[in-house]
Amino acid sequence: MGKIQTVTLFADWEPTNDFKLGLKDVEGKLTYLGSQVWRNPELKIVEKEMPSIGSEEVLIKVKACGICGSDVHMAQSDDEGYVLYPGLTAFPVTLGHEFSGVVAKAGEKAINKRTGKKYQEGEAVCSEEMLWCGSCRPCADGYPNHCERLQESGFSCDGAFAEYIKVNARYVWSLEDLRENYDQNEVFLAGSLVEPASVAYNAVIERGGGIRPGDNVVILGGGPIGLAAVAILKRAGAARVILSEPSEVRASLGKKIGADYIINPLKENFTQRVLEITEGLGAKIYLEATGLPDKVFPDIEQTIWQGKQINSVVIVVARSAKKIPLSGEVFQVRRASVVGSQGHSGHGTFPRVISAMASGMNILPLITKRISLEEVPENITLLQTSQEECKITAVLK
Amino acid sequence: MGKIQTVTLFADWEPTNDFKLGLKDVEGKLTYLGSQVWRNPELKIVEKEMPSIGSEEVLIKVKACGICGSDVHMAQSDDEGYVLYPGLTAFPVTLGHEFSGVVAKAGEKAINKRTGKKYQEGEAVCSEEMLWCGSCRPCADGYPNHCERLQESGFSCDGAFAEYIKVNARYVWSLEDLRENYDQNEVFLAGSLVEPASVAYNAVIERGGGIRPGDNVVILGGGPIGLAAVAILKRAGAARVILSEPSEVRASLGKKIGADYIINPLKENFTQRVLEITEGLGAKIYLEATGLPDKVFPDIEQTIWQGKQINSVVIVVARSAKKIPLSGEVFQVRRASVVGSQGHSGHGTFPRVISAMASGMNILPLITKRISLEEVPENITLLQTSQEECKITAVLK
Amino acid sequence: MGKIQTVTLFADWEPTNDFKLGLKDVEGKLTYLGSQVWRNPELKIVEKEMPSIGSEEVLIKVKACGICGSDVHMAQSDDEGYVLYPGLTAFPVTLGHEFSGVVAKAGEKAINKRTGKKYQEGEAVCSEEMLWCGSCRPCADGYPNHCERLQESGFSCDGAFAEYIKVNARYVWSLEDLRENYDQNEVFLAGSLVEPASVAYNAVIERGGGIRPGDNVVILGGGPIGLAAVAILKRAGAARVILSEPSEVRASLGKKIGADYIINPLKENFTQRVLEITEGLGAKIYLEATGLPDKVFPDIEQTIWQGKQINSVVIVVARSAKKIPLSGEVFQVRRASVVGSQGHSGHGTFPRVISAMASGMNILPLITKRISLEEVPENITLLQTSQEECKITAVLK
Amino acid sequence: MGKIQTVTLFADWEPTNDFKLGLKDVEGKLTYLGSQVWRNPELKIVEKEMPSIGSEEVLIKVKACGICGSDVHMAQSDDEGYVLYPGLTAFPVTLGHEFSGVVAKAGEKAINKRTGKKYQEGEAVCSEEMLWCGSCRPCADGYPNHCERLQESGFSCDGAFAEYIKVNARYVWSLEDLRENYDQNEVFLAGSLVEPASVAYNAVIERGGGIRPGDNVVILGGGPIGLAAVAILKRAGAARVILSEPSEVRASLGKKIGADYIINPLKENFTQRVLEITEGLGAKIYLEATGLPDKVFPDIEQTIWQGKQINSVVIVVARSAKKIPLSGEVFQVRRASVVGSQGHSGHGTFPRVISAMASGMNILPLITKRISLEEVPENITLLQTSQEECKITAVLK
Repeated sequence: MGKIQTVTLFADWEPTNDFKLGLKDVEGKLTYLGSQVWRNPELKIVEKEMPSIGSEEVLIKVKACGICGSDVHMAQSDDEGYVLYPGLTAFPVTLGHEFSGVVAKAGEKAINKRTGKKYQEGEAVCSEEMLWCGSCRPCADGYPNHCERLQESGFSCDGAFAEYIKVNARYVWSLEDLRENYDQNEVFLAGSLVEPASVAYNAVIERGGGIRPGDNVVILGGGPIGLAAVAILKRAGAARVILSEPSEVRASLGKKIGADYIINPLKENFTQRVLEITEGLGAKIYLEATGLPDKVFPDIEQTIWQGKQINSVVIVVARSAKKIPLSGEVFQVRRASVVGSQGHSGHGTFPRVISAMASGMNILPLITKRISLEEVPENITLLQTSQEECKITAVLK
Repeated sequence: MGKIQTVTLFADWEPTNDFKLGLKDVEGKLTYLGSQVWRNPELKIVEKEMPSIGSEEVLIKVKACGICGSDVHMAQSDDEGYVLYPGLTAFPVTLGHEFSGVVAKAGEKAINKRTGKKYQEGEAVCSEEMLWCGSCRPCADGYPNHCERLQESGFSCDGAFAEYIKVNARYVWSLEDLRENYDQNEVFLAGSLVEPASVAYNAVIERGGGIRPGDNVVILGGGPIGLAAVAILKRAGAARVILSEPSEVRASLGKKIGADYIINPLKENFTQRVLEITEGLGAKIYLEATGLPDKVFPDIEQTIWQGKQINSVVIVVARSAKKIPLSGEVFQVRRASVVGSQGHSGHGTFPRVISAMASGMNILPLITKRISLEEVPENITLLQTSQEECKITAVLK
Repeated sequence: MGKIQTVTLFADWEPTNDFKLGLKDVEGKLTYLGSQVWRNPELKIVEKEMPSIGSEEVLIKVKACGICGSDVHMAQSDDEGYVLYPGLTAFPVTLGHEFSGVVAKAGEKAINKRTGKKYQEGEAVCSEEMLWCGSCRPCADGYPNHCERLQESGFSCDGAFAEYIKVNARYVWSLEDLRENYDQNEVFLAGSLVEPASVAYNAVIERGGGIRPGDNVVILGGGPIGLAAVAILKRAGAARVILSEPSEVRASLGKKIGADYIINPLKENFTQRVLEITEGLGAKIYLEATGLPDKVFPDIEQTIWQGKQINSVVIVVARSAKKIPLSGEVFQVRRASVVGSQGHSGHGTFPRVISAMASGMNILPLITKRISLEEVPENITLLQTSQEECKITAVLK
Repeated sequence: MGKIQTVTLFADWEPTNDFKLGLKDVEGKLTYLGSQVWRNPELKIVEKEMPSIGSEEVLIKVKACGICGSDVHMAQSDDEGYVLYPGLTAFPVTLGHEFSGVVAKAGEKAINKRTGKKYQEGEAVCSEEMLWCGSCRPCADGYPNHCERLQESGFSCDGAFAEYIKVNARYVWSLEDLRENYDQNEVFLAGSLVEPASVAYNAVIERGGGIRPGDNVVILGGGPIGLAAVAILKRAGAARVILSEPSEVRASLGKKIGADYIINPLKENFTQRVLEITEGLGAKIYLEATGLPDKVFPDIEQTIWQGKQINSVVIVVARSAKKIPLSGEVFQVRRASVVGSQGHSGHGTFPRVISAMASGMNILPLITKRISLEEVPENITLLQTSQEECKITAVLK
């Protein structure tokens, strides 16, 4: 079947003293605690065998694949050489999980959810990154984001910084709807954003309960997830979308993508500004997408406390090990709540994100730089230090 | 205090033989079954005393008031002279309940929900039409649209086709938010549409459960409620808003206000068209706003049956005495449901409609004709026969 | 591996003239429209090969299996010899899908949802009957009851009126929790009721939205589903559980299982009685489990109309081809809704039913007769004419 | 009209230096910050005028009234003589807000929500303590527990440690349903518990979203609210109701009222015990009713983290000024949330609590001591130091 080019991450299995092999870990191969095991990460362009597919799988010719923060953290190491990424990993692995492409081949039982029939060659598609098992209790109950036996594309099995990738059809979603409003290239660029946009959608719509047209929202943090949330909540009818983000580059992207107001939390008083903008009301949704919850939560709470809005929901989507100091009384008096959010699968999220994109929600501005597959390693390295770019995306022929 | 001009409806209390005075009816004065009691309706321009307000009331100088279908039916009679409107009525009464104006005077306890303080003179406002009691069980439980002791502005007490109207502050909502994006006149025109738009909002958002961005919706019937629903659901992020409406005038208004597709159900196959437009999916929401449920329901059901969409909700907002023939199996296999909807009060609906209008949801095209207070009677009569206009609105100085 | 005894249904593939082979039908073997194809059904005790399992499957030694109404309809024919059951069928097939047993063998990847590890021999288990694919859009979205590629145990693949059955572990649920409060035999009898109880649970809790403690409910129809719903809603804190059922045998079972009041709809005025019992309020939930929706719906509607309760939900769980005549105004004025319900899978239903049974919800009285595997055919035949028994259950050693 | 006996709290208006008169405070009379203003509290038996009622009010002859923790804190002072109770207060005031009685007289518009007609003399009733305005935005939107212009019976206006009390009929609920299952005295004892039980019901059912039959729950803290929650959740079908409470007296009351398991958090490892009892699952609801959230929250979090249950909700109902240290990751990985809860009004809570009590939910064991009106002062004082009793209730002739 020939060979394919890939961007593969290598690292050494050298567990720290603290590490204990977990029940689902595999000695020398796979762990749920990456940063305690993997040392000396190295990115290489490597040739691999063309994947051969099973009866429920599709082979996808990759057309676009974006670099995610976790790609950066897998390839980045601390002072002792351990990778920064703390989660599920099995190296060496082809990186890349925010991708789109066209179906090159499909197994006999590889069903296209759009048509109910076997995938056809040439169908534009994207895929979930979370390979949920479909059989554990959370999966059976309808919560695949909390699968007990998750595998992850580009983390624990080969990803999409490659010419081809194979995926079980259950994780694949058609992008054909995008063709009407996007040109040939844009279809795949937009398609590569479906995954991160679905993380944002899961956070604000599924976990946060969404909004009703006319509600106000505040997004804290203008990374790709925060910015996608800006676009989604604007689309959902938010009256005032407020983005709190100190970087001017990100703030200007936010404006382009749907934010009505920008707050620079380093220069302005967050609470005062939110209350000014909302005429004393405050917001229905506060999305914590900064990764600094200990820093921003007191401001959020103060705004909820002083504003007249009841039923506010604070959604914590960014990961952080920091404790969040919560004042029960604020949440009692204002009938507020806090929810944690993870993942992008299930709940009709992927197809709705695609449908929203197809009908006018344009988040292409998130992609600020296009590169070739060969340029992926250097750009992953670049992102370890630079915040100039938002999403850097490899485009393949 | 001086006199004010009003458009008042007179009629004779001549109960039919079938009529039995209800528990809450008042002999010669008020009934819950208008069409069985009132005969020989007559619209007159009448001078009345300036209303004097209580401590919780505001006096509103009316700036705009639209003609509603129920105004038409109250003034229209059948072959035996009985009015067509079947509901709560107490004649003679000043008509008019879709209105806006400015506060001319406020009682000591007339609190502005926007500020939490007493209403100030000059505040732009509109009002609910449903004067819920706040004390019966549905009201106490949070369902004022189902108040057991409802009074209705412009039906059972004096309405807003008048220079001034008094209303308890609890029903009044500030329009000040509109001033930023609407000019002086438009503020009040838009404000007079808040009431009908809230009927639509209550139907599709509160009762229908709303949508998630990317869902498809179908609105059947392009009257003011159906058209407002078009705008609201577009605002809520619907991917494809489909309006089924035979009149070209209405269809073109629909397009202007947010419909992506129009179906002419008299010329096209409804089910086939919906499935074509949605690529075989169908819609999450079907709004029955035609008043002909027996005619359109089989089409809706067929579309649900043939489409792949599960969890569809059919919302019945238009009133009709016709039985709806429902096939249980369709609703079982497609996990669908039917809900009835009435009213516009409670659930944060009025303030959210105003907020949505203030931030970009423009439904001013619904108003196709502007008239003076004096022209109201002839235009109410006109609407008995003509469907040329959508909303005819009296503008006062 | 040896042989096993089974109760197998044979029939001839003789499609009627109206029948058209569907997309997912298989000529001579499988159809989605049983009653248009299968003729001359015959039940036989047949020996088959012991099933051999795949890596995700478990082999279950059957301990108890109840006869369901659909078993009866598959074996029963009309005047022209066609079977009565209208749905998915592939004959010859071993019948039986309401069952429990113990794990005899498990594949390497056959994970026990209770422990997160491979199934152990001897684990008491039951299984869903609906073999959802886990990959189509409804499955991926979390709605396995609406799977587009459903197979059904005991309908389109071999069921549990047999000494052994194999099932993919994803459909299997542990009954170990029952051991504390049920004796050795009861564990399996109770376990065989989990499937029908889950159909009821899905209807009233998942689809009907459940109740809050203190609400009233009405169940129409005292078959196994209706009776299980009685027990579930009593358990959920219903203040007054009213069962409408003409048969005295069923009514008395209803009382035993949790009904507070019985209405005999053939002798009493349904609406009047419900309003008497509920002191004029009516019910939050009306479960249509009679299969005669055209007959009972007008009574339900009248009760909703006359009662003070708002937000009533009518759940249609019994199958019927009859049209239901719905009055929109009733559902508008009373803020009511109608939902269709099918299936028992997903939404955490099976494990919660088991947990409820384990902690005190006893529905064993539903089983009114215990038989051996050999007696299954004659008892299926018996149920074609007799309504004396509720659930007849085969008990295996 | 004669005189009535009351238990009245007197205190001196001596604001601390930090105190600033709030917008809604009234100099010398009423404040929202009791503990910063009132000094030298003194309880006296005082004779007052029989209240005279307005047209929407009822005069209630009090039959039972329980002592609440806030009664204790209003009468208790710190080292400098300031009362401990921090909230809305207007002294002198008759204390008492957990009460029941019979209607002695009713205004013309004092409507009984049970009948839809004017209250009759002799009707057994109880009342909400929160006198929501019905006109501010939270009230209009359906959230009376968050009324912006709240008054409170027994705090800012005369309460029910008195022979008679007057209340606006909108806050009054009939207890007639209790007569069937409770004897003459018990009706009023049970009725006096409706208010605290409604605080618990609002927390676990309205704010916490309730449970589905078969879910597990953990209540932390066996005060009256925690214990009422035990009874309510048992009633709602909880499989395992676990009460964490160090006092043996309270624990034994918990058992009597519905707890299946008791944890003594001072002697046992909370997380380990919960996971043992629930076989590794954990609970759907954790109710923080201890007032020590900083102490118990880490245990709750650890249990959520180690258990397999997803979608847990932590409800904070007890008031505390302490910060709660929240780990975002736990709430992300386990799809969990935290909600604050306050109040007992709205959402159909009072009538459902009464209905649940009427049909079998017996929380009378909460009342461990019955006293006369004259004994109220000494028992309020007793409760400042003793935890022997749960609810002490004054019984009037």
